[in-house]
Amino acid sequence: MNVGVLGTGVVGRTLATKLVSLGHVVVMGSRTSDNAAAQSWATENGLERTSYGTFADAATHGELLINATAGSASLAALEAAGKENLHGKVLIDVANPLDFSQGMPPSLLVANTDSLGEQIQRAHPDVKVVKTLNTMNTILQADPRKVPGSHNVFVSGDDADAKDQVRELLQSFGWPAADIIDLGDITSARGAEMLLLLWVQIMGVLGTAQFNFKIAR
Amino acid sequence: MNVGVLGTGVVGRTLATKLVSLGHVVVMGSRTSDNAAAQSWATENGLERTSYGTFADAATHGELLINATAGSASLAALEAAGKENLHGKVLIDVANPLDFSQGMPPSLLVANTDSLGEQIQRAHPDVKVVKTLNTMNTILQADPRKVPGSHNVFVSGDDADAKDQVRELLQSFGWPAADIIDLGDITSARGAEMLLLLWVQIMGVLGTAQFNFKIAR
Repeated sequence: MNVGVLGTGVVGRTLATKLVSLGHVVVMGSRTSDNAAAQSWATENGLERTSYGTFADAATHGELLINATAGSASLAALEAAGKENLHGKVLIDVANPLDFSQGMPPSLLVANTDSLGEQIQRAHPDVKVVKTLNTMNTILQADPRKVPGSHNVFVSGDDADAKDQVRELLQSFGWPAADIIDLGDITSARGAEMLLLLWVQIMGVLGTAQFNFKIAR
Repeated sequence: MNVGVLGTGVVGRTLATKLVSLGHVVVMGSRTSDNAAAQSWATENGLERTSYGTFADAATHGELLINATAGSASLAALEAAGKENLHGKVLIDVANPLDFSQGMPPSLLVANTDSLGEQIQRAHPDVKVVKTLNTMNTILQADPRKVPGSHNVFVSGDDADAKDQVRELLQSFGWPAADIIDLGDITSARGAEMLLLLWVQIMGVLGTAQFNFKIAR
């Protein structure tokens, strides 16, 4: 499948590499067409299934899109991608609206009565936004077996078919179907994003980002 | 030990019953001295180790205090308890600042850059506030084995000795020491309280409150 990955940070590069390893053709997008991180990522991963360019280039290429930009920059990135290039597509939003302006620990730029997932959905009503994978380190996102045993990934979105497609993609990443929890519509992204403050705290306590939340029953 | 439980709802009654079963002497406090729920709880649990009265009565009695009032009423309840009756004591805060005024799902009255735990600590600087047990159903609070296997309870507070005392109490409730995660100072209550939106969402998905969060590593 053709996938557009918006964002050239560690999350975007990790997910893009995973997608290429699964046979997808990925264009990585950034603000500028000559982003050095995107360029070296494409070179490292073989130019037959990778390319890079602007956010609009990535959006145009992708049948499926992934927002892996910083949460504080996501709305601007998607605006730059162009409404006509996003139109009708499934957009996986893995970003968190973290605000580091007051130092550590971060707070959220939007929380409680709204979420970044909802902000993106409102700004792009004809895009099928699915919030997922934002509650863990990116190494785990792309390879859940890095933490042994069963643990969970959450999915939020308004469109059932889009969520089915994302569930299939997550399974191809290694997520067992039983560990994927559909939280409901895109408003449920609030809970998933608000988990981040606890995540940061626990990372500090454990001294590692290699952990995940599990719903024990 | 003499314990004062503030709040006569299901959380207060469940924790108070557990405490009595462990040999503690509990006074349950409410706004009025003749609260029917407190009265019937005391009768059911044997009058030699139980009593009930006002918030001030409970606070006066307790060497250790538990805030099990509704989060929206906690600050008023603690004010009614009287600063002189709270002075220097350990106060376990299990409340969540849930706002149901807009219906389900609830939002939080305070979140992200502040928490109820911090509000209580600021209002009562000479009280040793320890936030804990707020991230699960009360049946699990008092009996973690209701969910099989290992899962976690979080502790936040500024006073190390107070947290040690709370950790011991949690162990007496059945929490293995290894499952008790000290998140840090009272500001870490933000993350623990913000977990509630996800908790509510998951309760809806699973159709049960009998689950808990586990940090998988």
